[in-house]
Amino acid sequence: MAATSPVAPCDIIVFGGTGDLARRKLLPALYLRDRDGQLAADSRIVAVSRAGLDDAGYRDKVSAELRDHLPSGSYDEAAASRFLARIHYVSIDVAEKGSWLTLIALFKDAPQRVRVFYLACAPRLFGSICSGLRAGSLVTEQSRVVLEKPIGHDLASARRINEEVGAVFAEEQIFRIDHYLGKETVQNLLVLRFANAMLEPLWNSGSIDHVQITVAETVGVGGRVGYYDSSGALRDMVQNHLLQLLCLVAMEPPNRMDADAVRNEKLKVLQALRPLTGDEVHHRTVRGQYTPGLVEGSPVPGYTEELDGAASTTETFVALKAEVQNWRWAGVPFYLRTGKRLEQRASEIVVQFRPVPHSIFPGISDGAIATNRLVLRLQPDEGMRLHLVTKEPGPGGVRLRQVPLNLSFAETFKSRLPDAYERLLMDVVRGNPTLFMRRDEVEAAWEWTEPIHAAWADSRHRPQRYAAGTSGPTAATALIERDGRTWHEEESA
Amino acid sequence: MAATSPVAPCDIIVFGGTGDLARRKLLPALYLRDRDGQLAADSRIVAVSRAGLDDAGYRDKVSAELRDHLPSGSYDEAAASRFLARIHYVSIDVAEKGSWLTLIALFKDAPQRVRVFYLACAPRLFGSICSGLRAGSLVTEQSRVVLEKPIGHDLASARRINEEVGAVFAEEQIFRIDHYLGKETVQNLLVLRFANAMLEPLWNSGSIDHVQITVAETVGVGGRVGYYDSSGALRDMVQNHLLQLLCLVAMEPPNRMDADAVRNEKLKVLQALRPLTGDEVHHRTVRGQYTPGLVEGSPVPGYTEELDGAASTTETFVALKAEVQNWRWAGVPFYLRTGKRLEQRASEIVVQFRPVPHSIFPGISDGAIATNRLVLRLQPDEGMRLHLVTKEPGPGGVRLRQVPLNLSFAETFKSRLPDAYERLLMDVVRGNPTLFMRRDEVEAAWEWTEPIHAAWADSRHRPQRYAAGTSGPTAATALIERDGRTWHEEESA
Repeated sequence: MAATSPVAPCDIIVFGGTGDLARRKLLPALYLRDRDGQLAADSRIVAVSRAGLDDAGYRDKVSAELRDHLPSGSYDEAAASRFLARIHYVSIDVAEKGSWLTLIALFKDAPQRVRVFYLACAPRLFGSICSGLRAGSLVTEQSRVVLEKPIGHDLASARRINEEVGAVFAEEQIFRIDHYLGKETVQNLLVLRFANAMLEPLWNSGSIDHVQITVAETVGVGGRVGYYDSSGALRDMVQNHLLQLLCLVAMEPPNRMDADAVRNEKLKVLQALRPLTGDEVHHRTVRGQYTPGLVEGSPVPGYTEELDGAASTTETFVALKAEVQNWRWAGVPFYLRTGKRLEQRASEIVVQFRPVPHSIFPGISDGAIATNRLVLRLQPDEGMRLHLVTKEPGPGGVRLRQVPLNLSFAETFKSRLPDAYERLLMDVVRGNPTLFMRRDEVEAAWEWTEPIHAAWADSRHRPQRYAAGTSGPTAATALIERDGRTWHEEESA
Repeated sequence: MAATSPVAPCDIIVFGGTGDLARRKLLPALYLRDRDGQLAADSRIVAVSRAGLDDAGYRDKVSAELRDHLPSGSYDEAAASRFLARIHYVSIDVAEKGSWLTLIALFKDAPQRVRVFYLACAPRLFGSICSGLRAGSLVTEQSRVVLEKPIGHDLASARRINEEVGAVFAEEQIFRIDHYLGKETVQNLLVLRFANAMLEPLWNSGSIDHVQITVAETVGVGGRVGYYDSSGALRDMVQNHLLQLLCLVAMEPPNRMDADAVRNEKLKVLQALRPLTGDEVHHRTVRGQYTPGLVEGSPVPGYTEELDGAASTTETFVALKAEVQNWRWAGVPFYLRTGKRLEQRASEIVVQFRPVPHSIFPGISDGAIATNRLVLRLQPDEGMRLHLVTKEPGPGGVRLRQVPLNLSFAETFKSRLPDAYERLLMDVVRGNPTLFMRRDEVEAAWEWTEPIHAAWADSRHRPQRYAAGTSGPTAATALIERDGRTWHEEESA
């Protein structure tokens, strides 16, 4: 990673330091940035939780676990021991004022240093943590706070969180993370759109028939069933990840790639989403819940079984048809779908171009010519494909064949793709919030999804069942096929 | 080649049957079409020349030579003996009426069969051969004549040939061959343009900055020096191959892919070419002549040496800047270049898109963003590349990198690409002249090139010297660089 440049010395304080996110994502990401020389020598990482450990105990834990969560081949003994030496542990019960003193003491000798408070804990604690930080005079001008999703459960609770955090931090200090925005392919979507002059003339309803955004997972809700059952796929995935992707596909070119210019354009897209309310929700959305089935050859329980048999109307799958009501996109549907326990793990954005207006080829009808399609794969195997029609070689009549022009990031660049958290954490230290959600974006997204929840709650219908390991409820197929279109199935590379 | 379909029974009569073209191209092409089952059982091939052979003698000659000119692995003993049995030889001195009788007798038993008269001989013979065919009543409704280039030496001689042949054959029976139009990649250009809806909105001066057409050869004039010295690169390559490629890139979408619809559109392009006359010729064209040098590591003589030291102003290299004066292309230069004894054999069409109008990326100026480029390689390794700009993976700032999305025909389709002559010969038998030049096209091309010759002839300047094995005269580089552009150098695949 010769091209990385070190960031300013910083203290990164992780609330929820013994939690799943810290263990699986944050510490490995920080280790990798440190190994590559991006963390300044005196930067510290401070884990905060109620687990009552000490520095040594926490370092032992990290030392034992780190390797499990790193990409293979990236663990290095010397780098790891340097990394461990940066780590401190502070036990705090946020509600108890006295327990903050150790943390406060830690910062005495570094008053000017960049401070990153990463709230990797339950959102109900966000308010009291922020109050504690204020009470301890820990919030300096050089401080930022990172909020993990979910930012609320609906518009009202999102506003409440934003108020509580906003009472302590200025909006430009608040980094609402959506790790999807840190993925290379998502980053690349911005580059693709705005560094390739040939795409802009095509990027509108004149040339594009529709857009598909799919985030398919094979995992079930697993250990998160408590959280998940009160949330569901619309809140957990659509309100944030999928709508963010939609914004990046649909937004107008920002004047500059800076935080407010980009986020203003994304906000305009959210504000242009045609509201789905009442009966229309039932025509334009499908929700599903998985039943037992086979995923990648192994039998898995259904969602009800994971809830120990309790009845639930929580959706583990959503498909919906959105529309962006502006000059660029009028009449171009955006089909979104996401679900758990699906056939395969695959996230992609598909831009489907319009068919040729007229076939000039003898014996080939207009409709028989495959349409152009740009597929951006977010996972697995980040990359892109442009499907073009070419002539099948051979003498005699013209035979057409669709072929993909392929770009695999891993093959092309032959270096490890950094994890989204690596990029995003460094952006926080740098104070660059371009890839983080602004308050008004989060709230606009809730404003759009809330009436969908409301209509579902009013409905006598339950989520459609789908067997684990399938592509979701048949109603999701019907949703798009009613419009004479079809979900894209990526052929293997 | 499962997708080939047999053509009607036919007699193919090759005038110049003992010549280079017949030996190297026509017979191998016919053999391959026969091997693949495309020639009907009773089809015949009749070689005509003044060599005074008989059937057996000619078959022996073909049998001995065929394998040398076939792609490796395509020779098959059984197929070859079936093919040889189709072959007849007739010795004719075209000027001598009596010598036609054997040929006439040959057709007695097949009056209705498709007849293809392939004139693979010197153009000065075209008139007398056609008269002979008429005199012998050999021209039926089911007859076609194929004219090899050069169709004339200038506009007047081209008209004369067209008159002479036209006195015997109707225009729809006349197939003026340009084997470039039979190449898969050239065919594919039509498919690419008209089966991919996403290209048409880009295919104009709004999105395209300029077009480059290069046909670079490593060979010298070799044994053709007599013909070549009276011709030169403008007549030998530009007037036909390069202008034909330009037409296919620039033409409006034809209503149908049929002969007249396509050729009407090509003619309109030729008629829209901005005339180059007088002084402007010296500003917009460069001619060159090779001197001794190293080609692919071996020393080769200069052009003068090949002429045994005779002084000559014949050009072995041309570069020029053309413009198509219509709504689609106004202001978009088409840079053409072709030459012998160049650094490498490479023919390609490069469509260079405009730069982004504005960089949104911090620290990256507008001009620093590589422009999109579509490269169609005609040879070697037929295929195409679309150069896009993507994000170089890595955390930290945005770094851009140009990457090619690549399609190699050979890799993608994994079958032998048929030679241009295979396709074109079958098109002749089928009576489909779409890929052949109509009289008015040939004459329009001469009309445009003639003033260039005239200006060169009037000039006190001689062709610029370039060492064999280089990329041509430096003036050719200056021609495009004066406009702030540069010749495309394809990186290796």
